[in-house]
Amino acid sequence: MKPYQIMTKEERKNEYDALMNEYERFKALQLSLNMARGKPGREQLDLVRDILTVLDKAEDCADEGIDVRNYGNLTGIPSAKKLFAALLGTKPEQIMVGGNASLNLMYDLIAKAYTHGLAHSPRPWAKEEKVRFLCPAPGYDRHFKISESFGMELVTIRMTENGPDMDAVEAAVRDPAVKGIWCVPKYSNPDGIVYSDETIDRLAALRPAAPDFVLMWDNAYCVHEFEGDFAPFRDILSLCAAQGNADMVYEFASTSKITFPGAGVAVMAASEANLKYIESLLTFQTISYDKVNQLRHVRYLKDKENTLALMRRHAAVLAPKFAVVLETLEREIAPLEIARWTKPRGGYFVSLYAMPGTAKRVVGLMKDAGVTLTGAGATYPYGVDPDDSNIRIAPSLPPVAELQQAMAVLCVCLRLAALEKLGVS
Amino acid sequence: MKPYQIMTKEERKNEYDALMNEYERFKALQLSLNMARGKPGREQLDLVRDILTVLDKAEDCADEGIDVRNYGNLTGIPSAKKLFAALLGTKPEQIMVGGNASLNLMYDLIAKAYTHGLAHSPRPWAKEEKVRFLCPAPGYDRHFKISESFGMELVTIRMTENGPDMDAVEAAVRDPAVKGIWCVPKYSNPDGIVYSDETIDRLAALRPAAPDFVLMWDNAYCVHEFEGDFAPFRDILSLCAAQGNADMVYEFASTSKITFPGAGVAVMAASEANLKYIESLLTFQTISYDKVNQLRHVRYLKDKENTLALMRRHAAVLAPKFAVVLETLEREIAPLEIARWTKPRGGYFVSLYAMPGTAKRVVGLMKDAGVTLTGAGATYPYGVDPDDSNIRIAPSLPPVAELQQAMAVLCVCLRLAALEKLGVS
Repeated sequence: MKPYQIMTKEERKNEYDALMNEYERFKALQLSLNMARGKPGREQLDLVRDILTVLDKAEDCADEGIDVRNYGNLTGIPSAKKLFAALLGTKPEQIMVGGNASLNLMYDLIAKAYTHGLAHSPRPWAKEEKVRFLCPAPGYDRHFKISESFGMELVTIRMTENGPDMDAVEAAVRDPAVKGIWCVPKYSNPDGIVYSDETIDRLAALRPAAPDFVLMWDNAYCVHEFEGDFAPFRDILSLCAAQGNADMVYEFASTSKITFPGAGVAVMAASEANLKYIESLLTFQTISYDKVNQLRHVRYLKDKENTLALMRRHAAVLAPKFAVVLETLEREIAPLEIARWTKPRGGYFVSLYAMPGTAKRVVGLMKDAGVTLTGAGATYPYGVDPDDSNIRIAPSLPPVAELQQAMAVLCVCLRLAALEKLGVS
Repeated sequence: MKPYQIMTKEERKNEYDALMNEYERFKALQLSLNMARGKPGREQLDLVRDILTVLDKAEDCADEGIDVRNYGNLTGIPSAKKLFAALLGTKPEQIMVGGNASLNLMYDLIAKAYTHGLAHSPRPWAKEEKVRFLCPAPGYDRHFKISESFGMELVTIRMTENGPDMDAVEAAVRDPAVKGIWCVPKYSNPDGIVYSDETIDRLAALRPAAPDFVLMWDNAYCVHEFEGDFAPFRDILSLCAAQGNADMVYEFASTSKITFPGAGVAVMAASEANLKYIESLLTFQTISYDKVNQLRHVRYLKDKENTLALMRRHAAVLAPKFAVVLETLEREIAPLEIARWTKPRGGYFVSLYAMPGTAKRVVGLMKDAGVTLTGAGATYPYGVDPDDSNIRIAPSLPPVAELQQAMAVLCVCLRLAALEKLGVS
């Protein structure tokens, strides 16, 4: 094996023909594998089976005098606020516990900004001529899609190894049309980057021209290490408050990758003033979220320590899968010098940078061979990767044996596409 | 006892003084009773306790090959669609199963009309100069509040014993700014009126000037008889479709008053074209609703027959409470000719019409005596009852003994307020 760049054209041609044979053999297997989404696998779901029955008696359905089965308590039950405050390092009064999806809370916040405005909005965003939103890229496609769905102009911010390029962010927020930024501060989707202290300090200290600029702080992977110990993180709410920006930030998290992805509990943390404002609008939208499920989670997760112990059991399932991805790439691809990739310690993704101009081709080849990947470009605003290079690998769903197979196919596809790019005829 | 109208002023004065003594005795009891909301009582919640454990094994968490614990299946699981289609008399393809609150589905539909427009909207409602909405009154305060929260102009439509005044509705929809109407077709909130066939036929056949006029069909009490047999209702979706109005109607229902109010399952029924359109917008908002809870409901409720059997058990709890309300009013108030009230066979309310000009006073007197009622006027647009007469009585929450006490206080307050109105000095 030697780097493709220094191969002769004939060597590349031979390599390509051999790989194409291998690819055709994979196709003949008629695989049906999926590495598109950060979906936990069956083993992880089974691991938390006890949550199904942890709340099994009518008499137990109470939390500090509240019957959780009935209507009411829009912002969540006290014990759930305490649990999430402990997990996020914030105060129970700054916590709102919602339904099963943090994405829904984020969407609703943006929707309310459009229809009613946020606490400091001069007017609803629907009445603004132009709304721009900062999108550190590569990033989470569903964040960008929310912004796009409301007709915002997406402003790409380059991701560095320390988080969003803060020089660019600080310059951009001087534009009063820039109303916010999407952030995944710990194990960013897809790069697995942990924002540095300096990045976080500069974000907390931003001086945006827009009075209603919003730091969308999606702490999706706050306790989601799959390698090594729990990595503590700083409380963005108090950091912003210390900078006079108490109402600038909304933090989000959920148990989707702690308990059940489709039946977890989501949470929003914000200043008490922000929560009061949002509650005044939410009261028209719903009477209460599912408090039975909130209590079920409190009884099951108990406290931070017990939650972290559960996360180590998830890690034990996930670590071998990430190892397959990283070891395969290291063995099969590294010597060829046709790609680079991230080596995260937590989160749900490996971010693979294929040879520029080949990501779409790789994803297409994979699809034809029966392996679904996240669409190339999906991690960039408007779904367009200017380098056509990034591929998000989500190894959590397939069992290890299937993952090994999928990675073997991926390596062949990466090599084929690189050879095509370098020229084989 | 004789009608207050024909009492002499002196008789009224004596009556008033005696009642005031009685009222003061009630106050001294320092009651804390609540008849404000259609909240099921504890006995009803305990009645469905088995739903907590009906889904107790990891292996059972599948529905037609879908692992309900994981992400996905935005519009709900197949078995839940079938169950709700059977309950509503519609087709599974016309069903979307949501989270725990139908109010949330209604709000989200209106919010999407504002931010994105409905399927036939020329533009998002946020871009319209004026949006008007028809509010049959008295009606459900939370419906009106949704409209008000979005800055719509609320147009009052008089309720008749057969449903909304259809002459007024047909005239109003000629205005292209009129974008919809709120309807509770069976056991309307608060009057308990069941729309007549003629009313329903005329609603289904409306020819609104607005191409995106929406019939908000909140079938909240579709199986909620507390007296007598289940009363079948007609499928509004097929009635509208037969009139060429397939996309005009959205129907809503939930299990909030079948299983747990705070942890039930909500459903939206609409034409397949409408559902497809809504799903195209919802996909940005959430990945999926809580499918574990959907499956829990399917396993627990099983089918229509079993659900109706459960509703008869709820009725057995509710009927004695409604009897207390109606018998007390009949005994204490009827002879005085100072109020009238509805005698519903289902739903959650008795609608009391106090002597015009006294509803606020009655609710205020009640509050001072420790009994919370729905605010006077709440059942009218903008919270203003032009007659200051309607009081919504929700007898479901308090135990019978407390309810008897609350009704005794109410009768005293009704009499005091009427005497004040008629003059006692």
